[in-house]
Amino acid sequence: MITNKLSVSNRLAALPVSAIRKLTPYAAEAKAKGVKVYHLNIGDPDVKTPDVMLDVLKTWNQNPIRYAQSQGEPEFVNALLWYYHRLGHKFVQRSNIIATVGGSEACVMALFAVANPGEEVLVFEPFYSNYATCAAIMGVKLVPVPTSIENGFHLPDRQAIESRISPKTRALLFCTPGNPTGSVYTREEMDLLVSVAKDHDLFLISDEVYREYVFGGREHVSILSYMEQIPEQAIMVDSLSKRYSLCGARLGVFLTLNEAMIKGVTRMAQARLSGGLIDQFVGMQLTHVPDAYIEAVQVEYQKRRDVLYAGLNSIPGVTMARPEGAFYSMVGLPVKDSDDFCLWLLSEYRSNNETVMLAPGSGFYATPGKGTNEVRVAYVLNTRDLNRCVELVRDALNVYQQTRRS
Amino acid sequence: MITNKLSVSNRLAALPVSAIRKLTPYAAEAKAKGVKVYHLNIGDPDVKTPDVMLDVLKTWNQNPIRYAQSQGEPEFVNALLWYYHRLGHKFVQRSNIIATVGGSEACVMALFAVANPGEEVLVFEPFYSNYATCAAIMGVKLVPVPTSIENGFHLPDRQAIESRISPKTRALLFCTPGNPTGSVYTREEMDLLVSVAKDHDLFLISDEVYREYVFGGREHVSILSYMEQIPEQAIMVDSLSKRYSLCGARLGVFLTLNEAMIKGVTRMAQARLSGGLIDQFVGMQLTHVPDAYIEAVQVEYQKRRDVLYAGLNSIPGVTMARPEGAFYSMVGLPVKDSDDFCLWLLSEYRSNNETVMLAPGSGFYATPGKGTNEVRVAYVLNTRDLNRCVELVRDALNVYQQTRRS
Repeated sequence: MITNKLSVSNRLAALPVSAIRKLTPYAAEAKAKGVKVYHLNIGDPDVKTPDVMLDVLKTWNQNPIRYAQSQGEPEFVNALLWYYHRLGHKFVQRSNIIATVGGSEACVMALFAVANPGEEVLVFEPFYSNYATCAAIMGVKLVPVPTSIENGFHLPDRQAIESRISPKTRALLFCTPGNPTGSVYTREEMDLLVSVAKDHDLFLISDEVYREYVFGGREHVSILSYMEQIPEQAIMVDSLSKRYSLCGARLGVFLTLNEAMIKGVTRMAQARLSGGLIDQFVGMQLTHVPDAYIEAVQVEYQKRRDVLYAGLNSIPGVTMARPEGAFYSMVGLPVKDSDDFCLWLLSEYRSNNETVMLAPGSGFYATPGKGTNEVRVAYVLNTRDLNRCVELVRDALNVYQQTRRS
Repeated sequence: MITNKLSVSNRLAALPVSAIRKLTPYAAEAKAKGVKVYHLNIGDPDVKTPDVMLDVLKTWNQNPIRYAQSQGEPEFVNALLWYYHRLGHKFVQRSNIIATVGGSEACVMALFAVANPGEEVLVFEPFYSNYATCAAIMGVKLVPVPTSIENGFHLPDRQAIESRISPKTRALLFCTPGNPTGSVYTREEMDLLVSVAKDHDLFLISDEVYREYVFGGREHVSILSYMEQIPEQAIMVDSLSKRYSLCGARLGVFLTLNEAMIKGVTRMAQARLSGGLIDQFVGMQLTHVPDAYIEAVQVEYQKRRDVLYAGLNSIPGVTMARPEGAFYSMVGLPVKDSDDFCLWLLSEYRSNNETVMLAPGSGFYATPGKGTNEVRVAYVLNTRDLNRCVELVRDALNVYQQTRRS
């Protein structure tokens, strides 16, 4: 007998569906029918992981596979320290770092650490859709601050940010270089965020997992360069996933100078015992990755960006802001309901038995009705495939407009 | 300027410290001074991982390290299916399983899935201390149901359980074979739990990560053998950590027939993107582990149990219930404050420059004042070391009683 009492919890039932993955079953169905699906929807890089990192697997000689230390294996944390020191942030110490199970665990920890249930965190919209799920799991309310495609999703003015601050606001959460926007905040924008945090006693949670991917000579301004100024307030979320194509190795970083916070987050880390031991041994090889590796990846992503930017903007009615970093962009489409368009691409549209998968824009907004004419694209495909994606989007929009919208 | 508003969240500040790990800094200090510390405090097995599982590392040829599927890599889930079918639970299907980042993630998911913040879950005391932290993170109140060392921590009668049920109670959480108790619930006890769950519309969360370690011809009765009877109500938490000495591989299982719950937990899994890809490839080799491996480990643990049981019970004033399974026991000591005793062992006591680390009992109880004359021991050391541990405990108690207690 199923009674109401036996329903799953309200909070489980209310969890949002992943904007990036919700169409996956339709893609699987298309593939099962032999259709080739190009994935513009997800940022799982095709770039190779540095061989030197995977070489540790070939010579693996630890047995048993014991727990890693809860805060991270010392040699892995040392490698992270080496990396941050090399970026110029010499003040970072071992005790400021918790190695996490991917950047996503670091986000969850940060939300738990700054806010009690029902308290608020400001986030710049559109934002990484998993922030919404992580916040829902932690009982935190995300309050969106709108940004727009017209100015490349850069920050609005101070007043627009401050107008969203309430007595319940505890933090500002942002991502630079931005997923899903591709925008890279300037020093002036970072100054603004720090200044607002100071004036309103807020925490800053800076998600910098795309740090290395900044194009056209732009500078990435890290929260690390402000951390000594606001030691109690700043948290950095980081990850090796995108930097070294290690998405499946679940290697993230929670970093703060706030001692009470590190103590508490260490207790969170202890509750889940440890991250992956093998993964951390892969990760600690980062000190051996030649600079040429990252430089080549940067060049590759910039080339891909240029192909996709030129291609998509050449389609009538399509607007793509030029990404300054990361490997995403929000793209405006001449459709009323991009959820419908994305689903239709997978379930009906075919060109030469091929189609393209896009992430509907609505999942990257908290404001109802926003993003319905946008999609997120990730340019982690080679340029030939990206050109084919552009052709597919162009043709599909034509067909869609003739058959569905008119 | 640090204001109250900038304090970390109350919930972070209030997180309990790990009973198992809180003394780790003192152990590290002792080791730094050249003292040999025997670890009776933590269940990180010294038994070897099956070679066939680690062989996949030597021939690893996947590059890049892409995300694993959020619900688990299909081949890993297939291997788990093979395992549960082989145990006789043929009804289990792929869609009932989420591969988790260790058993601890499965616990967190289960607590989130069954209870809203402030709702209650009954747990049999003493209980695995990390349940308390996971519940605190999820805002769930654990309500202890006492059990006692005198009857080997078996279940109390129905009335004692029902007396703790309130309108806010949503589930019963239990661990069999038990950490930290070593007790294995009989079929009658499992019947009782299922009957109480039915009568009061409660979920059952059965933590069975020690399933293979049951001694003396006892039978392990899994919640799986009731799952078709109560498909909406039963959740199994499982892990490969202890079974194959893979603690650091973070391979856990969330299993239920409740479709709404699996849907919701899938969204939780998507929010953290994926578990470890490499670890899941290690785990999927479980189909190739010969039965002789587990049988040999069972024999080894039983031998260790016997050594520790005989040894500790031979010390005046020490009471150890005979563990029926897992590799833990709660041990009663002739001390008033086992926190003080455990700390003293690490910071002051030395015998031939050696000492022993124990986990203070209080951390395994939610009722204030309970467990203060108990410690948890884990017998994951070889029998020679275990004999030495017994000697150390015997001698230390003598010294402690003469110098600290009198």
